[in-house]
Amino acid sequence: MQKMRTESDLLGELQVPESAYYGVQTQRAINNFKISNHQLADYPEFVKALGIVKLGAAQANNELKILSDDLYKAIEFASNELIQKKYLNEFPIDMIQGGAGTSTNMNANEVIANIALEHLGKQKGEYQFCSPNDHVNLSQSTNDAYPSALKIALFEMNKPLVDALENLSTSFQSKAKEFENVIKMGRTQLQDAVPMTLGQEFEGFSNTLNKEVDNLHRVAQQLLVINMGATAIGTGLNALPGYAQLCTKKIATIMNEDVLLADNLVEATSDTSSFVDYSSALKRLCIKLSKICNDLRLLTSGPRTGLFEINLPPKQPGSSIMPGKVNPVIPEVVNQVCFKVIGNDTTISMAAEAGQLQLNVMEPIIGFSIMESIQYLTNAMNTLRVECIDGVTANTEHLKQEVLNSIGIVTALNPYIGYKASTKIAKEALETGGSVYKLVLEHNLLSKEKLDEILDPKNMLGPHI
Amino acid sequence: MQKMRTESDLLGELQVPESAYYGVQTQRAINNFKISNHQLADYPEFVKALGIVKLGAAQANNELKILSDDLYKAIEFASNELIQKKYLNEFPIDMIQGGAGTSTNMNANEVIANIALEHLGKQKGEYQFCSPNDHVNLSQSTNDAYPSALKIALFEMNKPLVDALENLSTSFQSKAKEFENVIKMGRTQLQDAVPMTLGQEFEGFSNTLNKEVDNLHRVAQQLLVINMGATAIGTGLNALPGYAQLCTKKIATIMNEDVLLADNLVEATSDTSSFVDYSSALKRLCIKLSKICNDLRLLTSGPRTGLFEINLPPKQPGSSIMPGKVNPVIPEVVNQVCFKVIGNDTTISMAAEAGQLQLNVMEPIIGFSIMESIQYLTNAMNTLRVECIDGVTANTEHLKQEVLNSIGIVTALNPYIGYKASTKIAKEALETGGSVYKLVLEHNLLSKEKLDEILDPKNMLGPHI
Amino acid sequence: MQKMRTESDLLGELQVPESAYYGVQTQRAINNFKISNHQLADYPEFVKALGIVKLGAAQANNELKILSDDLYKAIEFASNELIQKKYLNEFPIDMIQGGAGTSTNMNANEVIANIALEHLGKQKGEYQFCSPNDHVNLSQSTNDAYPSALKIALFEMNKPLVDALENLSTSFQSKAKEFENVIKMGRTQLQDAVPMTLGQEFEGFSNTLNKEVDNLHRVAQQLLVINMGATAIGTGLNALPGYAQLCTKKIATIMNEDVLLADNLVEATSDTSSFVDYSSALKRLCIKLSKICNDLRLLTSGPRTGLFEINLPPKQPGSSIMPGKVNPVIPEVVNQVCFKVIGNDTTISMAAEAGQLQLNVMEPIIGFSIMESIQYLTNAMNTLRVECIDGVTANTEHLKQEVLNSIGIVTALNPYIGYKASTKIAKEALETGGSVYKLVLEHNLLSKEKLDEILDPKNMLGPHI
Amino acid sequence: MQKMRTESDLLGELQVPESAYYGVQTQRAINNFKISNHQLADYPEFVKALGIVKLGAAQANNELKILSDDLYKAIEFASNELIQKKYLNEFPIDMIQGGAGTSTNMNANEVIANIALEHLGKQKGEYQFCSPNDHVNLSQSTNDAYPSALKIALFEMNKPLVDALENLSTSFQSKAKEFENVIKMGRTQLQDAVPMTLGQEFEGFSNTLNKEVDNLHRVAQQLLVINMGATAIGTGLNALPGYAQLCTKKIATIMNEDVLLADNLVEATSDTSSFVDYSSALKRLCIKLSKICNDLRLLTSGPRTGLFEINLPPKQPGSSIMPGKVNPVIPEVVNQVCFKVIGNDTTISMAAEAGQLQLNVMEPIIGFSIMESIQYLTNAMNTLRVECIDGVTANTEHLKQEVLNSIGIVTALNPYIGYKASTKIAKEALETGGSVYKLVLEHNLLSKEKLDEILDPKNMLGPHI
Repeated sequence: MQKMRTESDLLGELQVPESAYYGVQTQRAINNFKISNHQLADYPEFVKALGIVKLGAAQANNELKILSDDLYKAIEFASNELIQKKYLNEFPIDMIQGGAGTSTNMNANEVIANIALEHLGKQKGEYQFCSPNDHVNLSQSTNDAYPSALKIALFEMNKPLVDALENLSTSFQSKAKEFENVIKMGRTQLQDAVPMTLGQEFEGFSNTLNKEVDNLHRVAQQLLVINMGATAIGTGLNALPGYAQLCTKKIATIMNEDVLLADNLVEATSDTSSFVDYSSALKRLCIKLSKICNDLRLLTSGPRTGLFEINLPPKQPGSSIMPGKVNPVIPEVVNQVCFKVIGNDTTISMAAEAGQLQLNVMEPIIGFSIMESIQYLTNAMNTLRVECIDGVTANTEHLKQEVLNSIGIVTALNPYIGYKASTKIAKEALETGGSVYKLVLEHNLLSKEKLDEILDPKNMLGPHI
Repeated sequence: MQKMRTESDLLGELQVPESAYYGVQTQRAINNFKISNHQLADYPEFVKALGIVKLGAAQANNELKILSDDLYKAIEFASNELIQKKYLNEFPIDMIQGGAGTSTNMNANEVIANIALEHLGKQKGEYQFCSPNDHVNLSQSTNDAYPSALKIALFEMNKPLVDALENLSTSFQSKAKEFENVIKMGRTQLQDAVPMTLGQEFEGFSNTLNKEVDNLHRVAQQLLVINMGATAIGTGLNALPGYAQLCTKKIATIMNEDVLLADNLVEATSDTSSFVDYSSALKRLCIKLSKICNDLRLLTSGPRTGLFEINLPPKQPGSSIMPGKVNPVIPEVVNQVCFKVIGNDTTISMAAEAGQLQLNVMEPIIGFSIMESIQYLTNAMNTLRVECIDGVTANTEHLKQEVLNSIGIVTALNPYIGYKASTKIAKEALETGGSVYKLVLEHNLLSKEKLDEILDPKNMLGPHI
Repeated sequence: MQKMRTESDLLGELQVPESAYYGVQTQRAINNFKISNHQLADYPEFVKALGIVKLGAAQANNELKILSDDLYKAIEFASNELIQKKYLNEFPIDMIQGGAGTSTNMNANEVIANIALEHLGKQKGEYQFCSPNDHVNLSQSTNDAYPSALKIALFEMNKPLVDALENLSTSFQSKAKEFENVIKMGRTQLQDAVPMTLGQEFEGFSNTLNKEVDNLHRVAQQLLVINMGATAIGTGLNALPGYAQLCTKKIATIMNEDVLLADNLVEATSDTSSFVDYSSALKRLCIKLSKICNDLRLLTSGPRTGLFEINLPPKQPGSSIMPGKVNPVIPEVVNQVCFKVIGNDTTISMAAEAGQLQLNVMEPIIGFSIMESIQYLTNAMNTLRVECIDGVTANTEHLKQEVLNSIGIVTALNPYIGYKASTKIAKEALETGGSVYKLVLEHNLLSKEKLDEILDPKNMLGPHI
Repeated sequence: MQKMRTESDLLGELQVPESAYYGVQTQRAINNFKISNHQLADYPEFVKALGIVKLGAAQANNELKILSDDLYKAIEFASNELIQKKYLNEFPIDMIQGGAGTSTNMNANEVIANIALEHLGKQKGEYQFCSPNDHVNLSQSTNDAYPSALKIALFEMNKPLVDALENLSTSFQSKAKEFENVIKMGRTQLQDAVPMTLGQEFEGFSNTLNKEVDNLHRVAQQLLVINMGATAIGTGLNALPGYAQLCTKKIATIMNEDVLLADNLVEATSDTSSFVDYSSALKRLCIKLSKICNDLRLLTSGPRTGLFEINLPPKQPGSSIMPGKVNPVIPEVVNQVCFKVIGNDTTISMAAEAGQLQLNVMEPIIGFSIMESIQYLTNAMNTLRVECIDGVTANTEHLKQEVLNSIGIVTALNPYIGYKASTKIAKEALETGGSVYKLVLEHNLLSKEKLDEILDPKNMLGPHI
């Protein structure tokens, strides 16, 4: 049987496993929240961020002379353990929790206090020597420590996401180069339009994703505006003058990032708009990514009764009944991840709107949903690049024939014979199945030489005289 | 200059146009809510429904002896004017309004009171003879009269929507019959699958829409569960015992519909779930309708570099620059309406969630959003049928060639040569561009006679021995 | 080092762990989809449902004489292992996957084939004796087996959800009984309205949740309409006449539920509307549940500057900085779960709309999102009941004083002195801080006896003469 | 009877009203799209923006010598008429339309051509002298002209929105100043927290809204990145080299704004992300605005059984049955507008995701939804300011008493007696109903002098030594 120790709080005594570095409040939260089976421990960057916040606060408190050097050193040691992502197992609380993150904050306070106690040669639970509330949480409240840690965690998680995005954009760019001479028909409204190159199409994919890199940097930077020193409701009660600025500076130094203090701490303490904006950025990225995957699936449709423009690397047999079928399974899984991220954005919007008065109690679901979105999306983009885009090939000859056979090239005649005459040729081609080229000659609308020049697909790929 | 009369209420005196049948509270609401430019008057079924509710209440009050025969007859006359959709111009308040519909309810109370006053030979505004509150609103509160009227209005507006849906389903059904012998390739994941008929595809469209007819009937029936007699918060304060049942019965008789009293009036007064459910039904319909329009646009893609399976009736030139281009503009507009309806469902969900304690104050936006959805969707489905589906034609020969040329027909060989051998044939066909038929013979896997029978597309359209 | 065996498919050879019951296609899917870290194995009801589907198909095939008795018995044995939720670890594929569920279906086919092979005295991988495709998947396609299994799994998962809901409703009902004599002020638009009992309020919560029980039963029943026999695209290619009906009957018998065959298999194969409807039902439930939790948090607000009407059981200290603070953490966590479920509904709507032609390839994210919603919601409702509602207490005396002190009771005077005179009393009470009771007497509007009777709160709780 | 003239296009001849400046393609669109009853004419900024785009293109074409001076001058005259918002009635097409905006673009082309024709002394319809396609639409396609005009229109409509927002923020700021000495209890999770001033609370509202001003400027600036010169699919077919840059410069000059050419025209032509981002910004604003309105409604709740902290100006009687009731109707209507805007964001997300290949055909619903959101939101914010915030008053004495009576002030004792001892005091106060002040003295924890200083609310409003 597990050995237990007794701890107590406002509600009375409770047994905690003797081996646990967490304490009574963590234990209560374990008992109270059995919802998602996703624990804090599953998000190591979050545990690290809690360590950063606690270390920054301790440094500021020590410099302001309200935390002794001995206690500071012990708390510093303990916080650094968290920063190194040790003790993850000591964070077993459900990510979806009530209490606006108090349980998470107290989990960190308790684990740090007990690591510090052992470092000081004391026993776990001897909080008279190092208290989760009075020392580790000194000058803090959940309402500043929790959202600050959440933002820091998301900032860190954003980095591999951006890497995945940049790499994906680069992969499309390489293919754009490879396909720069592959001429094909462009389509608007799924109807044949005018010629372009497959390279231009993939360049577009690369370009549009690349713009999201900047956007993610922008919204991630907003996450570095924190509200340390706000304490309970933004008024800074129980924090010393200067603490907020100093603590922010310490955290900036620890992270080596441009961390800033919010300009109005009352506003900042109930505000979730940097989360909302970050999620909107993920949504916008997913709208683009889903559109691209839809396009890839269209372009690879076939092999015999579809567009058959490109080939995706075959990844697995496509059917339990239809032999030889291969499906675009990688774009398909990316589409689905995009829908999940967009759904999470709805969750986040509702949770953000539900804030009341001096706090938004729904922050845990906001943080959890964004973390889920980041993880899925990072995985999805890496998968898309490695398992799909890097291996795309073009059906060059088929594409060329389609251009030559198309009616859309009639558009290039507008400047020479006018929209009305061009319309007649197009109509006749459509009704008779004939070729635009032959019809123009038949109707003596242009000389063969002129026509050859105008209808040379190469002359249709950009502005032209 | 407009002649004015003076009326007064809790907040004091206010000028109202002499000619207006509405009174002081309507005037305040006109002044307070200048938001959407959509007036109650734009929704005649809503004005009619207010008349029905007021008439039902008056009948019950008269039968319960708390409304005199003279007053009853005057109110009956006035309510019937509303039921006949006269006096629409007297309902100028913005559909998006605060106050949980009090302004709308008082608008009806005031207009009815003034019509009744004139019917009684009195002047507009002589409320001592017929009061908007004490007589027209007798035994009622906004909190029962408004949602009841809203539900009745939506119930009525649902009828032309269902008609449009049934007609659309029938149109698809006619086409299914017309195309019953048009063999084509089915596709899963945009990849060639196995043969089917275009008739089966259109039959599927018809069938899936038809199921929504029943669903709309179901959710519309829920709208006939009303809370008359609840008064302010569902306790029935100021209503006589028996009034709730009697009033409901009167309304049922007026409408000749199966109107029911909610089983728990406290619950019913803050509950918006019949609206939520109705909106969910519209969303589900739109999910189907949008998918169908996506399919139509895919099937008509081309004419030379797309699927080119069907032709939609050309409705307008498709491009200001590309001569001869014709786009599937009708399905496109339907897709967009579907997105609007689905967006409205988000609005309705948030508004429904925002109810507090004994009332949901957000009912006006719920009602307005559903009415908008119904109108757009009714118009969109009628447009889709008349301007598009009724005129669809098939490219029968092209479709047949695609089946004969396909690899997917190899599936039919599974029961004879096994999945593994079929896979080999499919793979070879894909790599060599060869035909499944020839390859099977080359490899001596089946006799020509057997193969002819198996690969006869007609034998692939259903379960087969 | 792990011992491996070699398997092969359309794409060539691949190594599979020797100990694995899954085969080459499962292995490919493991490699392809590293997205969510949620495996099929995490959803035992889904593995069970796959077993049910495979057993039903095998029974039908055996009865139709296309599956030998020996093979049937082996497959029956293997399917029953899945039905008993053994071999869960053999289902390691990511829940979010491309391929419309082909990987999941093949995972089941492979595991069953290998269990059957061992049962037959053969080695794993000797598929010539029992093939995943030709025998286990006989007469099936992913496109009927996968959605059918998904529906069956959700149907089963719905049961504990409904239990949790019914128990929660009952808990509210018990409290309604307990509080039936606790008089309090009702509120509309957060403004004081008229008296009611706390019992009526809790009765409303119970009643409104109870209605969702029926709704969940209704939508769950829709999940029992399956499309077995549709095979690839609904035409039933490679299935024998009568198979669809027979297989459905077999599954009905295995489950002892009213399982039905879809009336149009082409329609059914691309249709996801039973998922959409089920998710809409979850959303509607969450709209109600979130509203109730909002109300609970309002009613327990305080203790000194809030409504202070009820007390929730204290579950944990509420603040790392504010001593003695206790927060409504349980309703808070339920609100957050509701937002997650509503977000999942957005995901599901988008995925459902994205279906194309003969299939909806996005089914995996639909199934995963609903399963997540069910799990969180079941946990949340059980938590709400056990940790919160069962222990709610009322501040009876405080509530009574508020009624006596209120202005809203003036409403009861309408029938006696009219709305206009009542308004004057209310206005004077508001401006002077006086009591309605005293003001009516001061103004000689009613006798003390009459007033005492009218203003007796007990007379205000329902229709009254 | 209306006199008609005959025009023709790809589909043949059609009658157009003789008096109409629009032509055959507009007429077809009128006939095809009868959906929303919202016409282009209802959005004058859109018509103006079409004029700007057409004028810029004509200037560039003239400078590039492909449009004669005479024709240029006529088109310039006509475009300026649109820029001055004349001829609005000539834009009767439904805002929700298929065809990716071709109808809107052709409507502008036709109206300008006919105005120009009359200016040239010709008859309407004599398009041989000035053709909608060959002259007005020269070097353009719907696919560059339409989204560019849409963006310009939204950019202009954003201005009054930002004005309304800034004015609202200023109004909150004025109140913040007015309430700077009004001490009250802050609340987290609806539970009493620690003291603050009402001024700090309103300052937070002002500050948080003010941040949205910058955000709207940012996203509006993105709308000035246009794709003129892209023509049909971004390749610039039929446009001269240099035209794209020149046309953009001309438009920048006409607007006197920093208009930029997209860096990749293929990408830009199918991209809708500036619309998505703008809508996300509206959503974020609405999340804040809705939260603020929720807070206002909480703070004004009562008068006797709510928080009763502030008074909103009474705008109308609040109930048809409850005399004297006044509701917070203005915040209520703003909440509802916010839900509509958030719903529109769902619409826009889905429409943006639905783009395919070289174009997003769903732009009309995107544009329409954003315009609706801007209009409603501008009206709502102006209404909120004028009808509500400017007139808010505080119940100062009541607020002060609540602070003195609160338990939350015990927080200020932490630094002196520790969290554990403070917790005991808080618990005892809660259980006995006693005052924190008295209990501290009773337990001899601090001297009266020290306690008086610590518990002076003024010392709790910010960081303190």
